[in-house]
Amino acid sequence: MSAVADLDTTAPRQATRPFEIRRFRRGELGTADDADLVATEEPFEIRLGYSRSDGSRAEEPVSITMRTPGHDEDLAVGFLFTEGIIRAGSDVQRVVTRGQQAADGLINVVRVELTPGVAVDFKRLERNFYISSSCGVCGKASIDAVAVQGQYDVGATDFHISGAALGQLPEALKTKQSVFEQTGGLHASGLFDAAGAVVALREDVGRHNALDKLIGHQLLKGKIPLSNNGIIVSGRASFELMQKAKMAGVPLVAAVGAPSSLAVGLAREFGITLVGFLKADRFNVYSRPDRIR
Amino acid sequence: MSAVADLDTTAPRQATRPFEIRRFRRGELGTADDADLVATEEPFEIRLGYSRSDGSRAEEPVSITMRTPGHDEDLAVGFLFTEGIIRAGSDVQRVVTRGQQAADGLINVVRVELTPGVAVDFKRLERNFYISSSCGVCGKASIDAVAVQGQYDVGATDFHISGAALGQLPEALKTKQSVFEQTGGLHASGLFDAAGAVVALREDVGRHNALDKLIGHQLLKGKIPLSNNGIIVSGRASFELMQKAKMAGVPLVAAVGAPSSLAVGLAREFGITLVGFLKADRFNVYSRPDRIR
Repeated sequence: MSAVADLDTTAPRQATRPFEIRRFRRGELGTADDADLVATEEPFEIRLGYSRSDGSRAEEPVSITMRTPGHDEDLAVGFLFTEGIIRAGSDVQRVVTRGQQAADGLINVVRVELTPGVAVDFKRLERNFYISSSCGVCGKASIDAVAVQGQYDVGATDFHISGAALGQLPEALKTKQSVFEQTGGLHASGLFDAAGAVVALREDVGRHNALDKLIGHQLLKGKIPLSNNGIIVSGRASFELMQKAKMAGVPLVAAVGAPSSLAVGLAREFGITLVGFLKADRFNVYSRPDRIR
Repeated sequence: MSAVADLDTTAPRQATRPFEIRRFRRGELGTADDADLVATEEPFEIRLGYSRSDGSRAEEPVSITMRTPGHDEDLAVGFLFTEGIIRAGSDVQRVVTRGQQAADGLINVVRVELTPGVAVDFKRLERNFYISSSCGVCGKASIDAVAVQGQYDVGATDFHISGAALGQLPEALKTKQSVFEQTGGLHASGLFDAAGAVVALREDVGRHNALDKLIGHQLLKGKIPLSNNGIIVSGRASFELMQKAKMAGVPLVAAVGAPSSLAVGLAREFGITLVGFLKADRFNVYSRPDRIR
């Protein structure tokens, strides 16, 4: 299990595209075209192959989203796991990229074949935060729904890290990002250990996709729950990112940007340490500061 | 129609929440709690009230999303319009906030009542980018789907603005944002005129919600298509934001962050001027530079 493979970021050929653009500089719009690289965004369909109760095989589309090509298998598996559709890496028999190529040479459909005997709860495919709650559509009900899905007690996880190690993470993330410097257009999710070393990294135009790629990769390696790791995200911390971290058993989430109120609420409910506005020498801690030495 | 109302940003009471946090500064984690404001994120359900073919009334849920409370009616109407479910402001009879309040006092369900006789194409409620395309799931098919939905020819729109006026927009947006300075957690979408004046502004934790709020407000005012305006977004320009701009007939989109490949593709296909990495003295133009003097 080499660290190189984990840090193998999105292949530049697929992840960026060249465009001819005009630059406005020093009060003047250039008169000639100039080459620029842009982060690729392409639709992506995840299909699920599974066994019916009579043993015959079936296939259903479960999601279509915009993503940056690269690590598509990680994305598909991570999405199914953080949505609660699969519960372990052993639920996946294989991942098949379908033969059909789009005109641009990209393969934008992936089928995840479940191990025979693994049951699919198709109700989970319809995201319903709030159906069983007395408060109707509200933040508390959204958090309660995560409690029902999650299988790991992150609050009890014994993980500690120094404030100085946390402070070095944004720079480490930037250094390791292969695509970001070229386009400025990709979000990154990084996995780090208690010493603050970034041990895995994934990138995408969508922040939720970057995290699903990271978690899917770890699931396929048999590393879930991630109880000895923290996650750093390049943007803001939303409810959705915290929900994915909880599903993967991550005890600490650090965001370079701001957290939302519901991200803080979820972190406090489940005992996840939530750090926001992470910079080299300063940051805020929104829950469980006891994990930071 | 006063400029004050258009710039009336999200009410601070709902849009932010106070939390007790710990701050890490000068190598030390504070030992006492300190008050901080965080951008509110809450689930939001949009329901559609409409007439059946026999004239009786019916109601269907069409979307649940996370959003920042404030201008919920604008968000609901804007979402329905940019998704192609309604085609004009006159399709909306009234917007009803349902009586049920969540435990925190927020009303998180809005029902948009359609004018009797307005037909609903429920197929549009299922987002299917690619069904009628020969290339399957690909970027070109996603753009083609927008072509079918959109009713305005933005490419033919005669709109011009100076590079200097564009450069002043990021600072103008920041100055007018009421919530951003407090939390750092909200995206903003601003509407500006050919002189570079920001004439309307909406904020949300979700960048797509901020734009839907802005467009919904303009639709209810009878101002669509927005052929004499540009839109500035505080983050990156994705396919989804460009699709919404096209639906509203906006000839120029300026992003403070990077554009994606599919955003550039959509802009070029429909003749929308796309500006990225917008700063006071420099920016890039990805399509239709002829609108910038």
